[in-house]
Amino acid sequence: GVLPLGRRPPAWGTAARQPPGLPLAPARAFSNNKILVELDESSGVAMMKFKSPPVNSLSLDVLTEFCISLEKLENNRACRGVIFTSAIPKIFSSGLDITEMCGKSAEHYAEFWRAVQEMWLRLYGCNMVTIAAVNGSSPAGGCLIALSCDYRIMVDNPKFSIGLNEAQLGIVAPFWFKDTFVNVVGQRIAERSLQLGALHPAPEALKLGLVDELVPEEKLQEKAAAVMAQWLAMPDHARQITKSMMRKTVLDRLISHREEDIQHFINFTSKESIQKSLRTYMEMLRKKK
Amino acid sequence: GVLPLGRRPPAWGTAARQPPGLPLAPARAFSNNKILVELDESSGVAMMKFKSPPVNSLSLDVLTEFCISLEKLENNRACRGVIFTSAIPKIFSSGLDITEMCGKSAEHYAEFWRAVQEMWLRLYGCNMVTIAAVNGSSPAGGCLIALSCDYRIMVDNPKFSIGLNEAQLGIVAPFWFKDTFVNVVGQRIAERSLQLGALHPAPEALKLGLVDELVPEEKLQEKAAAVMAQWLAMPDHARQITKSMMRKTVLDRLISHREEDIQHFINFTSKESIQKSLRTYMEMLRKKK
Amino acid sequence: GVLPLGRRPPAWGTAARQPPGLPLAPARAFSNNKILVELDESSGVAMMKFKSPPVNSLSLDVLTEFCISLEKLENNRACRGVIFTSAIPKIFSSGLDITEMCGKSAEHYAEFWRAVQEMWLRLYGCNMVTIAAVNGSSPAGGCLIALSCDYRIMVDNPKFSIGLNEAQLGIVAPFWFKDTFVNVVGQRIAERSLQLGALHPAPEALKLGLVDELVPEEKLQEKAAAVMAQWLAMPDHARQITKSMMRKTVLDRLISHREEDIQHFINFTSKESIQKSLRTYMEMLRKKK
Repeated sequence: GVLPLGRRPPAWGTAARQPPGLPLAPARAFSNNKILVELDESSGVAMMKFKSPPVNSLSLDVLTEFCISLEKLENNRACRGVIFTSAIPKIFSSGLDITEMCGKSAEHYAEFWRAVQEMWLRLYGCNMVTIAAVNGSSPAGGCLIALSCDYRIMVDNPKFSIGLNEAQLGIVAPFWFKDTFVNVVGQRIAERSLQLGALHPAPEALKLGLVDELVPEEKLQEKAAAVMAQWLAMPDHARQITKSMMRKTVLDRLISHREEDIQHFINFTSKESIQKSLRTYMEMLRKKK
Repeated sequence: GVLPLGRRPPAWGTAARQPPGLPLAPARAFSNNKILVELDESSGVAMMKFKSPPVNSLSLDVLTEFCISLEKLENNRACRGVIFTSAIPKIFSSGLDITEMCGKSAEHYAEFWRAVQEMWLRLYGCNMVTIAAVNGSSPAGGCLIALSCDYRIMVDNPKFSIGLNEAQLGIVAPFWFKDTFVNVVGQRIAERSLQLGALHPAPEALKLGLVDELVPEEKLQEKAAAVMAQWLAMPDHARQITKSMMRKTVLDRLISHREEDIQHFINFTSKESIQKSLRTYMEMLRKKK
Repeated sequence: GVLPLGRRPPAWGTAARQPPGLPLAPARAFSNNKILVELDESSGVAMMKFKSPPVNSLSLDVLTEFCISLEKLENNRACRGVIFTSAIPKIFSSGLDITEMCGKSAEHYAEFWRAVQEMWLRLYGCNMVTIAAVNGSSPAGGCLIALSCDYRIMVDNPKFSIGLNEAQLGIVAPFWFKDTFVNVVGQRIAERSLQLGALHPAPEALKLGLVDELVPEEKLQEKAAAVMAQWLAMPDHARQITKSMMRKTVLDRLISHREEDIQHFINFTSKESIQKSLRTYMEMLRKKK
């Protein structure tokens, strides 16, 4: 990775010990607990599949595994692009795991939030071509993952929706979620969508520019592969520098305010009013089942 | 209000003496000279109607009344949203009152400009949900009021137009008018529209994104109420922080250059060439009648 | 010119000695080697035609001539607007002359790059109304010229394409090319288009907002003149200040990093890998003929 990544959670020691830039010795494919990774060395394209039932929520474990997997691929010269998708029907990712934000210690909140930051810094600043194959709903942190890719293809099903709906839960998307959103759809659409905590059904998401195209579910992987081939036709180096130039301002804003952002998250999350909002929301989710 | 508002014009002493955050004692509705305010406590929605014949121009008096009225509503916990509209047929607001900018003293220009800034700082940074129900033409400062709201609904009549047409008058929309415009329609549309001092008929304004939707005149209030209900369904706190985050950069730019901006206005307006442009324009308006 | 222009290449001494603001004594039209300039004093509109066979590439000579011609027009009070077009069929401009970037000395790279910067600073910051009448393909630096104008009209022919395709050549559009692009089409479209080094056929360019309108080839000059008349109907002073306000941020970014940008260009261009990419590309162009 080329990003200045700051202090890493201890759990990532393994990945950090990889000599940077060297391919992982024999491993061609590796699979972990909650994220499946398959690398097709002939095309240079990896598929990263979220498989954390019931709804691919982004727990500290999942975020850590996500970062390790992404770093391994970055360090593997055989890999030039990654397609992100879900192994669970109807949901891409439900976003941050709210249980990590409820009734825990300040230390836990800090560790969790650092992992969320790390995930985004690595993905948004990723040197490889990144494509989101959104095969289900994608609220909040799930939407952030899609928005951080180079290209978004969504299944053409109005039952699947996508958006930063934090405000609906009584919480606030942090500034770098907002910056990422604005970089995709512009200030005006972001202002309205974020204030309303809107979840946009796929056809509306397309109109707003939140996703780049819609395809029937059975065509999703084929389409993702075709788009990936188009992006991989570019010389890596020029594409990477261009990408980095386009995203630098927004990446730098978090990098230079990382500790403040963690402190802010701890303070905000520790408030009794916010804890109450989150508990109410979890209660509602439980009843929904 | 949560905005750092700087020194206020003395005329606003009354409002400033209101203990912040406390509801206005018995008043359920209050009306003033040139702005009618009705608050429906059951819905939490206030209607603010401009009634300053002939064309709702924004004189120092009107601006002062606007700010006092808005502050009273902000301090009234029963009020969560405001709909802005006109009590005068065919015109929403004609913008800044040019007579305030002609043949007056530097002190007067300073006082006037501070009031214009204050109006915008309060409205653009308003914690309540703000909706413009644009029932007539809305040039220059009138357009600014609409652009500063959270949502804009305009009467579907091509005879009504909206835009920052300052350049047509030989004057220049200040940077924060421009920033507000850019935040709504983006850089490219703003560049062209502001340089041409364009007034866009309602259907064109919709296409450009300058307004969010058009409705027949008789449906305007009903539609504004429905949109307001949708926005008020959100938890206030999360929506307010999100709004503030979205608009902070642009608000801060004026807040940190407020005195320079006043000085710039005085210097510019005092120029004989500008005075001549403004007199010519007023002459033209008089002949039109 | 009103731009702080820094040190100029010695070749421009002639132009620099022109007393600024004074009309060029008798000359009504002047023509040079590679750029034809005709000024219609009755309308105040100049036509600048690129005529540097075979493909109007922007060599150091052409760039120098471009800047001198533009400065002469700026200093001529009879001139208020310029239309840029090509005297060569099917190509507007092929962009920077790659031979200037191959196998030359660091001094040459510096001189060349300063001329490229100068061209853009003068054109993007030009006080006159500038319209691109794009009558052929317009890749890379050709696209930059079009994007730097106030308005872009392109011939409605899908065989003509436009875009910043640098990444296709293994090189990277510099940050101010990118900024100019983003100011026209927004961040998202720019991110994708620049990473893919895309050349957009005219109809697609219109959809993306890269050009403002398409017309049949035989209507191009007539249309350009009509649009120019519309822009010239505005008072010059207000329009100029508005334009300057809209473009200031992006202009200032280069102005304050000019020497670094030159150094960066020298370092990048001097790399053997980049030299190889450029030679390969030139080889390909030669074979195409």
